[in-house]
Amino acid sequence: MIKVVLLGAGNVAFHLAKVFDLTPNIDFVQQFRRNNKNDGDFQATTLKTDKIDKLASADIYVIAINDDAITDFSKQLNLTKGLVVHTSGSMPLSALACKANKGVFYPLQTFSKEQSIDFKSIPITIEAENKEDTKLLFQFAKSISKHVYEINSSQREKLHIAAVFANNFTNHMYSIAKEICDSSHINFDILKPLIKETSEKVQKVDPKLAQTGPAKRNDQKIIKKHLSQISGQEKEIYALISKSIINKLNS
Amino acid sequence: MIKVVLLGAGNVAFHLAKVFDLTPNIDFVQQFRRNNKNDGDFQATTLKTDKIDKLASADIYVIAINDDAITDFSKQLNLTKGLVVHTSGSMPLSALACKANKGVFYPLQTFSKEQSIDFKSIPITIEAENKEDTKLLFQFAKSISKHVYEINSSQREKLHIAAVFANNFTNHMYSIAKEICDSSHINFDILKPLIKETSEKVQKVDPKLAQTGPAKRNDQKIIKKHLSQISGQEKEIYALISKSIINKLNS
Repeated sequence: MIKVVLLGAGNVAFHLAKVFDLTPNIDFVQQFRRNNKNDGDFQATTLKTDKIDKLASADIYVIAINDDAITDFSKQLNLTKGLVVHTSGSMPLSALACKANKGVFYPLQTFSKEQSIDFKSIPITIEAENKEDTKLLFQFAKSISKHVYEINSSQREKLHIAAVFANNFTNHMYSIAKEICDSSHINFDILKPLIKETSEKVQKVDPKLAQTGPAKRNDQKIIKKHLSQISGQEKEIYALISKSIINKLNS
Repeated sequence: MIKVVLLGAGNVAFHLAKVFDLTPNIDFVQQFRRNNKNDGDFQATTLKTDKIDKLASADIYVIAINDDAITDFSKQLNLTKGLVVHTSGSMPLSALACKANKGVFYPLQTFSKEQSIDFKSIPITIEAENKEDTKLLFQFAKSISKHVYEINSSQREKLHIAAVFANNFTNHMYSIAKEICDSSHINFDILKPLIKETSEKVQKVDPKLAQTGPAKRNDQKIIKKHLSQISGQEKEIYALISKSIINKLNS
């Protein structure tokens, strides 16, 4: 059994509390919440505390709070034993400023309280300063998810940028597509099967090989026709991404 | 029973022949193929011909050939009865130059011979010059797919642009994400569950409401940090799309 203390009460902490509570070989001994009131959230069966100097003894302390607060908060941790990890994708391991051993436990997914999470399929990336902690963290992560990857802080920073392209920017492409549909009174539902197909294809095929469309074919006639029908930032985006597709496929 | 003649032998014709052959209330009377040889493709049980002046009598003639060839090919059709439709997303109804009635029957999906197609879930957009043909075309499309939409030529042109954003550009975002991963020796698999989640969310939620990430939060600190770590066209794309997300959410 791995003894775990969770520190935080936000979206990520909410889902972690749930999975820690339900995982057989995790002993979820305590949750620290700055304002330890019953706010209607999921209540793990574990003990709660709002006293930072009354933390229980544990193998791993998981900090799930806002990125910007990690350094200051970790300074307050008066721990000499155990491994302290944060859960942020964009902060390096060195953001932790405690005396105890440091690590990172970063589950790559978007979390919202309304949406239940199946941790088994969520990739967790881990990092620790020494081999023993890495082993412990791997074992811990593996008990929650089937997909655990060891990556360092500089890789995690790149991964975060890649995730912005694969998730946030992709979603913005959907937004633009919907606006184009809306402005022509076309039901956006028409595009949904195509969106599904594209995202399913990338699960199996290298996206570079799966590329289709006028830019892939370098069909300047269609590209020009399309550009003449849109304006503003959409037009800039259409032109720039088309240019990028053409360049990539010829490089 | 709706009597149908199919004209063409490419990817789209391949899949249409299959579904016409299997649909109970379609009477698939003939397929025209310019080079009527057995090329190992799926062989519908219908009669084949390579004589453009020997077309069978039918209710609907479906042209599934390259966009650029539609006008010239349709000129050769010596038909006075029946409805002639093309299957192109980017050509207007007026691209047809035959004497018979004209229409469009455009299934919105990417087709490749390797990938079998479940037409029931593929949206088909239709257009015809008069009400009676529209009704016939609707009935015909409905016997193949659950999702049939009537849209005009100018809407279809916009839909095609929207599809470029939702499909081709989205796939390019995946490509860039993979390149960023590759260059840092990160397994691209880490991003796949996130890609899946994002594309599933848009099936239910307006993408504008589902937007997350640094640009959504207007987190200039992270945006600048990310921009400092990438270069070339990726950097331009990151900056432009981030600006567009920030603008949209404040408009």
